[in-house]
Amino acid sequence: MNPTDIDAAARRLREGHAHFIRETPLWKLPGRALGVDCAEVWLKLEQLQTGGSFKARGMLNRLLCNPIPASGVIIASGGNAAIAAAAAAAELGVPCEVFVPTTSSPAKQQKLRELGAQVVVTGAAYADALEACLARQRQTGALLAHAYDQPEVVAGAGTVAREIEAQGGRLPDSVLVSVGGGGLIAGIASWFEGRARVVALEPERAPTLYQARAAGEPVDVAVSGVAADALGAKRIGNIAWTVTQQHVKDALLLPDAAIRDAQLWLWKQMKLAVEPAAALGLAALHSGAWKPRADETVCLLLCGANLDPSTLA
Amino acid sequence: MNPTDIDAAARRLREGHAHFIRETPLWKLPGRALGVDCAEVWLKLEQLQTGGSFKARGMLNRLLCNPIPASGVIIASGGNAAIAAAAAAAELGVPCEVFVPTTSSPAKQQKLRELGAQVVVTGAAYADALEACLARQRQTGALLAHAYDQPEVVAGAGTVAREIEAQGGRLPDSVLVSVGGGGLIAGIASWFEGRARVVALEPERAPTLYQARAAGEPVDVAVSGVAADALGAKRIGNIAWTVTQQHVKDALLLPDAAIRDAQLWLWKQMKLAVEPAAALGLAALHSGAWKPRADETVCLLLCGANLDPSTLA
Repeated sequence: MNPTDIDAAARRLREGHAHFIRETPLWKLPGRALGVDCAEVWLKLEQLQTGGSFKARGMLNRLLCNPIPASGVIIASGGNAAIAAAAAAAELGVPCEVFVPTTSSPAKQQKLRELGAQVVVTGAAYADALEACLARQRQTGALLAHAYDQPEVVAGAGTVAREIEAQGGRLPDSVLVSVGGGGLIAGIASWFEGRARVVALEPERAPTLYQARAAGEPVDVAVSGVAADALGAKRIGNIAWTVTQQHVKDALLLPDAAIRDAQLWLWKQMKLAVEPAAALGLAALHSGAWKPRADETVCLLLCGANLDPSTLA
Repeated sequence: MNPTDIDAAARRLREGHAHFIRETPLWKLPGRALGVDCAEVWLKLEQLQTGGSFKARGMLNRLLCNPIPASGVIIASGGNAAIAAAAAAAELGVPCEVFVPTTSSPAKQQKLRELGAQVVVTGAAYADALEACLARQRQTGALLAHAYDQPEVVAGAGTVAREIEAQGGRLPDSVLVSVGGGGLIAGIASWFEGRARVVALEPERAPTLYQARAAGEPVDVAVSGVAADALGAKRIGNIAWTVTQQHVKDALLLPDAAIRDAQLWLWKQMKLAVEPAAALGLAALHSGAWKPRADETVCLLLCGANLDPSTLA
């Protein structure tokens, strides 16, 4: 995975799909506007992407890079990746089958159906839904999409970093990125290749990358907490593991209370409605977990907005 | 009121107050991304301004242009203008007294108190609160701020248009602007001076400018409906009347249902949380009230986000 792959993904997504994959705003603010003692904070408003998260980039890239059989695309996920896959399939006019566990919210299932996906609700846990998905894939031959651990998915996510650099007109000093399975940070770090300091952020209660680093290899981790619906991958992806070992020095954990405070602050002070997973960057700054230099430009990647808005009231 | 006044206001707001008055993003999208048959739609995300609406620009400009007595600033308003006045006063470290009618929401009163304002709840209607405010002002000598009908307030609002032109790198063809008392459209139209077509939008149930045009002069109008908390001025301001007579050809009315549909569409499809008053532009496009040419660039000004987020669920 390198910048050339990401350039190619960006071209692919732009050609004929500029109405679908949005160039989301990069909002440059003085640090003080966010109560942060640094020169500038850049907010990449990727929560405004189609499907309400960055995932649409990787999913459409996956679909554009592969022949799609008549049976379409298939994925196991109850979250943002499934919404993105369903939206990308609709964009290309191909069928989409989504396997979700019985614990997934009826609201998300409804959203998937609105996007035209066939929703199969099965199994008490994600692993069960995945198993059923894989069995079905062997039967139908549909194109399998993974939420974070496929090269095309990572390259698609990397186009966010490419956009940040182009819109910013220069490099930020640091980029704070939330980590679930690691597809986003793998793409971001592959683009910057150390030219900007990419910082991995995880909830204390979903420390997938943090525990892998402690163990020296990807390991299964128990996940829970306020951001688990988006960052609750049990194990860091293989691509993310390799890329972060090479390009990411800092992996920080944040308590749920700091994440929730930052989420509410973003709504009340900035009128940005984001899901908890997208608030980890500001939580790191407000809690002091990440202390920028006075002359630093910090970029926060607001990665999703698939939330129940009444939770902001 | 002319572009020179607006240039001066922009300089004033930037010098030392760049952390307070935010340069809000201008989001350029293909028309198709919003389901609109035109070349481009530009969304000016001014709902992300300090205090959750464009009003902070005019209020801070009013305060910076005048000597502020020890008694501070005083205003009668239950809405976005009061929040902006309280925030601007806090920015300058001067007292702020706000008169609100008994019908104003406890949530808004609480927000005003959090900003450090002295809140006086009096009178069943806005007119009663205003009368009490004016009596108090004669007593204290505080600087009176008006929600929309003062030159400094209009010039501050005009800086939004200046920013749109600078960020866009060119003129949009049309700019769709919601009208309450008319402070915003007066500033916008004064900046463009006919170089872009400024279109006035009002709810059918708050037709302040529309009825003034029918009568040939400002008249009192009954106001109600989904956007009345922000667009419910009973009478168009004198400055807005003069400016729109000169520079605004089109004044359109929109039904509440179209406004509410557009508000929900902006949340569900774009993850933009805005108040009903900010959804009139998209309502005009989606309902066909404003039909752009195929090669047109339409700019929508999203003017506020002071809403209860649970109303988006």
